[in-house]
Amino acid sequence: RLKEGRALAQDVWSIFNALNLPADCINLGQGYMNFPPPAWVTEAAEEALRTVAPNHYSHPKGRIRLREAIKKFYGPQLGRELDVESEILVTSGANEGQYSVFTAFLEQGDEVIMFEPFFDQYLPSVTFNGGKPVYVPLHPPAHDISKPTSNDWTIDIAELRRAVTPRTKMIIVNTPHNPVGKVFTKKELEEIAAVAEEFNLLVMSDEVYDCLVFDGKEHIRIANLPGMWDRTVTVGSAGKAFAATGWRVGWLIGPASIIQPTLAATTRIVFCTNSPLQEAAASGLEQAKERQYFEIQRAEYAERRKILVDVFDQLGLKYTLPEGSYFILLDISNVKFPDDYPFPKSVLGRGRDFRACWFIAMEIGVSSIPVSEFYCEEHANIGEAYARFAFCKDVDTLGKAAERLKNLK
Amino acid sequence: RLKEGRALAQDVWSIFNALNLPADCINLGQGYMNFPPPAWVTEAAEEALRTVAPNHYSHPKGRIRLREAIKKFYGPQLGRELDVESEILVTSGANEGQYSVFTAFLEQGDEVIMFEPFFDQYLPSVTFNGGKPVYVPLHPPAHDISKPTSNDWTIDIAELRRAVTPRTKMIIVNTPHNPVGKVFTKKELEEIAAVAEEFNLLVMSDEVYDCLVFDGKEHIRIANLPGMWDRTVTVGSAGKAFAATGWRVGWLIGPASIIQPTLAATTRIVFCTNSPLQEAAASGLEQAKERQYFEIQRAEYAERRKILVDVFDQLGLKYTLPEGSYFILLDISNVKFPDDYPFPKSVLGRGRDFRACWFIAMEIGVSSIPVSEFYCEEHANIGEAYARFAFCKDVDTLGKAAERLKNLK
Ligand SMILES: CSCCC(=O)C(=O)O
Ligand SMILES: CSCCC(=O)C(=O)O
Repeated sequence: RLKEGRALAQDVWSIFNALNLPADCINLGQGYMNFPPPAWVTEAAEEALRTVAPNHYSHPKGRIRLREAIKKFYGPQLGRELDVESEILVTSGANEGQYSVFTAFLEQGDEVIMFEPFFDQYLPSVTFNGGKPVYVPLHPPAHDISKPTSNDWTIDIAELRRAVTPRTKMIIVNTPHNPVGKVFTKKELEEIAAVAEEFNLLVMSDEVYDCLVFDGKEHIRIANLPGMWDRTVTVGSAGKAFAATGWRVGWLIGPASIIQPTLAATTRIVFCTNSPLQEAAASGLEQAKERQYFEIQRAEYAERRKILVDVFDQLGLKYTLPEGSYFILLDISNVKFPDDYPFPKSVLGRGRDFRACWFIAMEIGVSSIPVSEFYCEEHANIGEAYARFAFCKDVDTLGKAAERLKNLK
Repeated sequence: RLKEGRALAQDVWSIFNALNLPADCINLGQGYMNFPPPAWVTEAAEEALRTVAPNHYSHPKGRIRLREAIKKFYGPQLGRELDVESEILVTSGANEGQYSVFTAFLEQGDEVIMFEPFFDQYLPSVTFNGGKPVYVPLHPPAHDISKPTSNDWTIDIAELRRAVTPRTKMIIVNTPHNPVGKVFTKKELEEIAAVAEEFNLLVMSDEVYDCLVFDGKEHIRIANLPGMWDRTVTVGSAGKAFAATGWRVGWLIGPASIIQPTLAATTRIVFCTNSPLQEAAASGLEQAKERQYFEIQRAEYAERRKILVDVFDQLGLKYTLPEGSYFILLDISNVKFPDDYPFPKSVLGRGRDFRACWFIAMEIGVSSIPVSEFYCEEHANIGEAYARFAFCKDVDTLGKAAERLKNLK
């Protein structure tokens, strides 16, 4: 009597969490930090816990302090005075925010275009709400490089245009991109925007890694392009910004025409987001500028990225240079393992990349995430060529991981 | 291009929050406390904020410490060794937990029976997931009493039986009941259980006020009745238990056949529940027994209830004696107000009870919640006879409210 198909099947995160990897295996799998949020951020939550109101329901729009902080932080970047009453919505993580947009806007059979590979949660978020995912490829680097100097995953705008049908309602943009680490260029976003305008589509722009862009590259917000504000909802996340993935505080920014129906949806789904950690997120955004927090964090992540990049370079392995996000894709096509290796059952039923990731975790001592799960079933074979390593870990841990990864060849 | 109908219309909580009641109006509207959670509970969250893991993603099932605490606390009450891996699920508030059950189990057109009046979030939670709500009346006290000695809202089991169709998938039970404060008797629950068994229905038992039952009345869990475990999911809430409605930590307890599909749904909707406040909820459940926390809390709430009951008795007003929960329904049919009173627009478009509640808030200085919103549109007129007052406030505040309410007549 259950819904059919992959949507209610086990997700890659749960599969890998359930695998009981050895305790000394270094976890570069799911993207969360092995360090805490800054104390100057958590202090606000501790204070909140000692007072009355921030222990109780927040307004479903979010606590006003956080909405004000979002307005001050993002307003200048978006070039507008944001209206805290109608253009900002705090959600229970970016994930729930996106889910609520789909709940508010999708009618049975509406199509949602996403670039593939895609963050795996998009698929069930769309289908649970009656929508149909439509995939447009992000093409892997065509040339055979072992030392990439840029990200090199590309889109073909003609393919996007061809994917549009009369049932298309929305395009999902994800920049910086999980899992490929691509930061979309202005030109690419302009081309996507032109398609959205031509066919009157909404755009959900998942920018949860906006604070993690490297090599002086610029993070462009598609909402900022001419004419795009009115059709774009921009998604942000306190978890990524403040090393607090377990707080479940995210936000949506967009025109009232998108935010208000989404407010109605989120109010019914979760009623409101937890209050104490909204105070912390607000405090973080309020202080970030004067503390140069994001500048320092970016430099720290660039250093973390370098540790993995260096070892892959030394080994002459093919990988994708992340321009943003905290993920790096390694080409594992050449990682060999015996067919009769003792794989757990949940891994055996999946792509080659699941077996490769298991083998690397057990034999090398570093866990990663198989990338076939970021593809629809039909195209999963493309993802089987990659394992995703997260570098949102402290330098010591990454150094140890790099030492172990030297045994990959 | 939005979904139609009431589901995406503004909810009663948002309407009343938006009304800008005078600051000195005493708020007995939405059910949240004007006092903080106990310090011995919040301390665990403060500690969590200073460590690593409890700031990051929890397992989508919930943090193991909380699942263990739920097992220890509820296991004996349910007469079983709960399996923390498959029979307990932590959710982002009880609301999101219930929403996820619907997401996991409802197919387009499936019917869900609820007793009416019903907690208003049930309706959109069902319809957003493609279900159809079916209403079975809770009958208001038939006799004209001004001093009730029991709750007196009744069900007619023949009406429940007649409401079942081949499309019925689930019955929602809510005990103690919001808004009427009824604690269902063993006999009533046995009758409901018999219908569920006869027609092979699931039961969602919303028991978020289980810790607030008065006058020595017993809270019966329908999951405990013979044969019912396998078809029942029991819903609990840290917000109600620990005066922390803004933490958004709730839980579901039930057989793996219900919990596992719901886990898949909640994993997609919110991914996981915030981690720091799960630690606090765990700490609360762990210590509750030795601190006699719930016994003391029950006595405190009985005292709070008495303050409102006494003033209604003095005035000879008709009300419903809450056997459980922290709500009391006042019959406001006889509250008079001028038709040309300056009502705000959002109140004017609604039932008489909206106008009465507004009038009482403005002229008496105590806000409450109109009860027509706990009925479907067709039956809203029944609810118009009542205003719901919350007594989850400190004794001082309730005393002041009682003073003001003396002017009701
Ligand atoms: C649902 S896991 C959260 C996303 C993330 O951090 C990841 O992709 O690893
Ligand atoms: C969605 S409001 C939360 C429920 C409650 O406390 C109420 O009924 O007032």
